[in-house]
Amino acid sequence: MINKSSLAIISEPCPSTDRIEYDEALRLSELEVRKCLKTAPPLIRRQTSHLARAAGKGIRARALLACSISSDGFIRHDAVNVAAAVELLHLATLIHDDIIDDAEMRRGIDALHVKFGEKTAVLCGDFLFCLAFDLASSISPRETDKDKIDDVLPPYLTEICLGEIREFSNTGNLDLTEREYFRIISGKTAALFQATFHAGFLLSDEPREAKDAYIETGKQMGILFQLVDDCLDFVSSKKKAKKPVLTDCRRGVVTLPLIYALRADNTLRGKMENGLSEQELKAAVIAAGGVEYTQSKIKNCRSKAKKLISSLGSENKQIRLELLLDKAAAL
Amino acid sequence: MINKSSLAIISEPCPSTDRIEYDEALRLSELEVRKCLKTAPPLIRRQTSHLARAAGKGIRARALLACSISSDGFIRHDAVNVAAAVELLHLATLIHDDIIDDAEMRRGIDALHVKFGEKTAVLCGDFLFCLAFDLASSISPRETDKDKIDDVLPPYLTEICLGEIREFSNTGNLDLTEREYFRIISGKTAALFQATFHAGFLLSDEPREAKDAYIETGKQMGILFQLVDDCLDFVSSKKKAKKPVLTDCRRGVVTLPLIYALRADNTLRGKMENGLSEQELKAAVIAAGGVEYTQSKIKNCRSKAKKLISSLGSENKQIRLELLLDKAAAL
Repeated sequence: MINKSSLAIISEPCPSTDRIEYDEALRLSELEVRKCLKTAPPLIRRQTSHLARAAGKGIRARALLACSISSDGFIRHDAVNVAAAVELLHLATLIHDDIIDDAEMRRGIDALHVKFGEKTAVLCGDFLFCLAFDLASSISPRETDKDKIDDVLPPYLTEICLGEIREFSNTGNLDLTEREYFRIISGKTAALFQATFHAGFLLSDEPREAKDAYIETGKQMGILFQLVDDCLDFVSSKKKAKKPVLTDCRRGVVTLPLIYALRADNTLRGKMENGLSEQELKAAVIAAGGVEYTQSKIKNCRSKAKKLISSLGSENKQIRLELLLDKAAAL
Repeated sequence: MINKSSLAIISEPCPSTDRIEYDEALRLSELEVRKCLKTAPPLIRRQTSHLARAAGKGIRARALLACSISSDGFIRHDAVNVAAAVELLHLATLIHDDIIDDAEMRRGIDALHVKFGEKTAVLCGDFLFCLAFDLASSISPRETDKDKIDDVLPPYLTEICLGEIREFSNTGNLDLTEREYFRIISGKTAALFQATFHAGFLLSDEPREAKDAYIETGKQMGILFQLVDDCLDFVSSKKKAKKPVLTDCRRGVVTLPLIYALRADNTLRGKMENGLSEQELKAAVIAAGGVEYTQSKIKNCRSKAKKLISSLGSENKQIRLELLLDKAAAL
């Protein structure tokens, strides 16, 4: 585990006002997200203010900013808006996702569609989606680079949608294979991490050849993040997870711990079909080794990501990204 | 009224393969939309194929292509993708719009959420939205121009969302003012026309100074289009409108014919509150002059748009846009 305080000595004095340090960039991007939510048009301010009450971990903004650190240790000021944009995009997908999944809570508060109705939630998701694109499209590309931030986002967002659609069409499917599960989470979760790392790379001064390593790191971190979330559904308490646990199962979302348990314990399916209490299901999945198996997959992702990170940019960047990896992997 | 056949003589031979004629561009953009819908990922192909069965009038694609005609009478080949993108964006907004409005039919077939459920419809709308951005972001800007197509879209889309939210929050509000009604339709309908005209302008070789005239023409045409639609709800037959008529009222969407009628006939509100049959309401709105008043507004928009069009580009372009205006204004 890397000590965060060791980071201070790596930064050099800021060469100009349009280049800022990581901590400042993070602070500004959090402010920007809050500003967008708090100053939304009056018509939906009640809804967006509700969202502002429960900030996420900001792991995507942090990852974007870490990736955008240039070789001098500083970050382009306009990375702040892109970091805010990925968090807003994430929020937009969560709102629609909660409608699709019939989720009741999110980040410790009522899901938006529960509090304000599905129709309003559809509109709020759409609005934040547009706002995010608006923020991202304000960034001009590096002179040496033809790719624009808002050009790279759409294909990843299409992947997110497909992941969601794939998950939804497998609701309650106890025959879901591990392979198909990984296709689902590669879309619904990893694609936004890929977009985040890709955009961060574009904002940095890394050479073109480094692009694929960034995108792959994003993919591994995204998959790891989802695997951890899916484990938490079986092992966490409601308070810690900030949402009811075992909700995936209850809503028919089949995840890796259960997929493995169904494979390892061939009596489980019959028991589930005859009706199991939540506590019984939890115990059965853990006893069959479903959580342990998922943890081994998390470990794999973590080593892959760690190896990739060691090839990215400066030590400062690597330390930041490793800290994020630790954070994402914390069960 | 301009005769369409007179257009043939205006075009000159195509100077190169990447510049095409209007009719060819329109054919290709319609093909592109159908291709996107018919070859969507298997998971949602059933839904998108359902949409492909009922093509709209393509007025936005036609407007975009007309605006993008350059002084030599030809169109950049990549305008085809942008024209397809605006049609897909329109389709995406319709899908979410129909959820919000509880609409049952669209373009003569079941609305998507009726046939496949709300959750699927949310996802399909999101998917088409992403697809549209993907298409639009593939366009490189004119060398002389810094604006990119996908940079200009987000602010207009935000306006569309706000228009929808504004409409939704005024459901059943018989106190809706004419001023607020125009704010609603400026967002929900005119903003996409503005985006269309703006993007078309960017694809043409018109000088920078012409931008505002294009955007304003789009606004007038969009408002006119919505006013006509709102009149049709009172005067058309189900067969002609390809959707049930008087549905706005039934769903609590208050439009200009009713706003005027409520103002002109101060007994109408009481009658409505006591319960009026659909035929009685229709007759009352017409008798109070609501349709006639809306038609006078349509006429105003039409003259404004006509005057603006006469300042845009070549005669070829002007003729195309006037034809579209005639089409949009046809009650």
